[in-house]
Amino acid sequence: MQALSLKAGQLTYLRNVSPPKPGQDEALIKILIAGICSTDLEIVKGYADYEGILGHEFVGFVEDAAEAVWIGRRVVGSINIGCQDCEVCHNDGPEHCLNRTVLGIHSHDGVFADYVTLPIDNLYQIPQSVSDEQAVFTEPLAAALRILEQVVASPSRRLAVIGPGKLGMLVAQVLALSGADPTVIGRRQSSLETARNLDMQTGLVEHLADNSFDLIVEATGNEAGLAQALRLVKPRGVLILKSTFSGISRIDLTKLVVGEVSVIGSRCGPFGPALRLLESGSIKVDDMITASYKLSEGVAAFKHASQPGIRKILLRP
Amino acid sequence: MQALSLKAGQLTYLRNVSPPKPGQDEALIKILIAGICSTDLEIVKGYADYEGILGHEFVGFVEDAAEAVWIGRRVVGSINIGCQDCEVCHNDGPEHCLNRTVLGIHSHDGVFADYVTLPIDNLYQIPQSVSDEQAVFTEPLAAALRILEQVVASPSRRLAVIGPGKLGMLVAQVLALSGADPTVIGRRQSSLETARNLDMQTGLVEHLADNSFDLIVEATGNEAGLAQALRLVKPRGVLILKSTFSGISRIDLTKLVVGEVSVIGSRCGPFGPALRLLESGSIKVDDMITASYKLSEGVAAFKHASQPGIRKILLRP
Repeated sequence: MQALSLKAGQLTYLRNVSPPKPGQDEALIKILIAGICSTDLEIVKGYADYEGILGHEFVGFVEDAAEAVWIGRRVVGSINIGCQDCEVCHNDGPEHCLNRTVLGIHSHDGVFADYVTLPIDNLYQIPQSVSDEQAVFTEPLAAALRILEQVVASPSRRLAVIGPGKLGMLVAQVLALSGADPTVIGRRQSSLETARNLDMQTGLVEHLADNSFDLIVEATGNEAGLAQALRLVKPRGVLILKSTFSGISRIDLTKLVVGEVSVIGSRCGPFGPALRLLESGSIKVDDMITASYKLSEGVAAFKHASQPGIRKILLRP
Repeated sequence: MQALSLKAGQLTYLRNVSPPKPGQDEALIKILIAGICSTDLEIVKGYADYEGILGHEFVGFVEDAAEAVWIGRRVVGSINIGCQDCEVCHNDGPEHCLNRTVLGIHSHDGVFADYVTLPIDNLYQIPQSVSDEQAVFTEPLAAALRILEQVVASPSRRLAVIGPGKLGMLVAQVLALSGADPTVIGRRQSSLETARNLDMQTGLVEHLADNSFDLIVEATGNEAGLAQALRLVKPRGVLILKSTFSGISRIDLTKLVVGEVSVIGSRCGPFGPALRLLESGSIKVDDMITASYKLSEGVAAFKHASQPGIRKILLRP
């Protein structure tokens, strides 16, 4: 099969990769469409020390599975594969299993390929009314919903999202579901166009006063975003960190400690609720696709995706 | 009056300082005893940009006050003085008032002097059975109790305190009040002697495995402590930051975000509960005093206090 693979920091399109073989509880999934995530761009730069086939956002058809009922279903899949044998897996699920593999991120070949395998436990059937181009947002939308599992995002407080990118716009929409009026914060007016099109409050980082918000979700993908978010959050406020990137960040602990700020890391979230919101149309993703590439043009697609202001870039085998 | 004052980074003992005059709602307090806190040592190094009379831990007698009932009372006092005129003061109290002054830390002369003034609202009468040498721990014990106002410190989880100093040992005792069995973590066996004397679990940083604890309170007072605490806390665990020091810290955001760790700043706490625990004898502070100096020997006392392994150094006018 064809695949887009990372080795020694080099992203390469390959034509003759052996397709993966599903294990006992796994499904063989033919990829219909896949999305390039900011984390993929960071992985190419060295984040997570990953080598192998990249990609973790996908829509596919189940071609083979021991549980025959799954064959032919159109699915998305959660990305953490736990050992199923530890206290973490038994109590909390696979997301924090210390022996887990992660689709296209850690010791498990990803979805920028013709085929992928995943445990059937990771699969979610896509409702018929949800298109492939909508369903490919299930994984990042689930990550946005994770915030609602972690903190009280009260609709009557001052909420903000800093970083108006792909994930940031999903987070802002998720916060607004409760009737909240979140402010989307960016560095340039041009980056806030999507937010304005969704009738959201917007603000430029440098125009906003210190201590302006009760809760800020940081989704900038860069270190400067964290420092700005710390400046903008009020004392006793909450800062949710969504950005994953390689390297060590510098942080002013004085504001954090003296201001008694809570900084909460946030990663993967629930697929079921994400699919229900895509089905109901409560979350708009149709304007969030910039371009679609053939997998054979994957290296060019990555170059495009790494440019500023670009939204979702799709890959099709 | 005499006082220990900081100016341009220089700590000086002065003999002829004018005593402060109490305002309408304030009391004039004669200092009986005061304690040197790690924050005082950091302030001398430049933290908080403070100039003036240092010190915020004290026991005193009220010599004058508009509310005559307070005159003659032996008191401790909380350190944040709010503007009483803003939303924060009205809703949450003075601790995070943006216009606040802070005793011996920000725009309000401190307690390393013969006299200090404080609003009567900040004062707490000391129960008769609590000695001056015990009551001087009210402020740091309140700061330790602040943790119980912020998070669920479940007694059945794996709790730890990193940094077995003055504040760390108060925090460990506070955590143990619920029947929890906290581990006190240090860099040297010698630093863990107080913890062992209190029959607490102890551990050396380098002997402890990654992801060992559900909740860790970081009270080391240095940047390395935060990195170690992040290493030792398990995914989805909680890290409480108590250290205030000057400068920017480097932090590995990957563990924080991917591990969904909550990092929570924690500062001042409730005086009433602290005094009740000192009165009941539930918190032991008698072994936590290293030495007592006359205020006139204050500069030497600070040198002593800044040596490693030193516990509370007291100053008496």
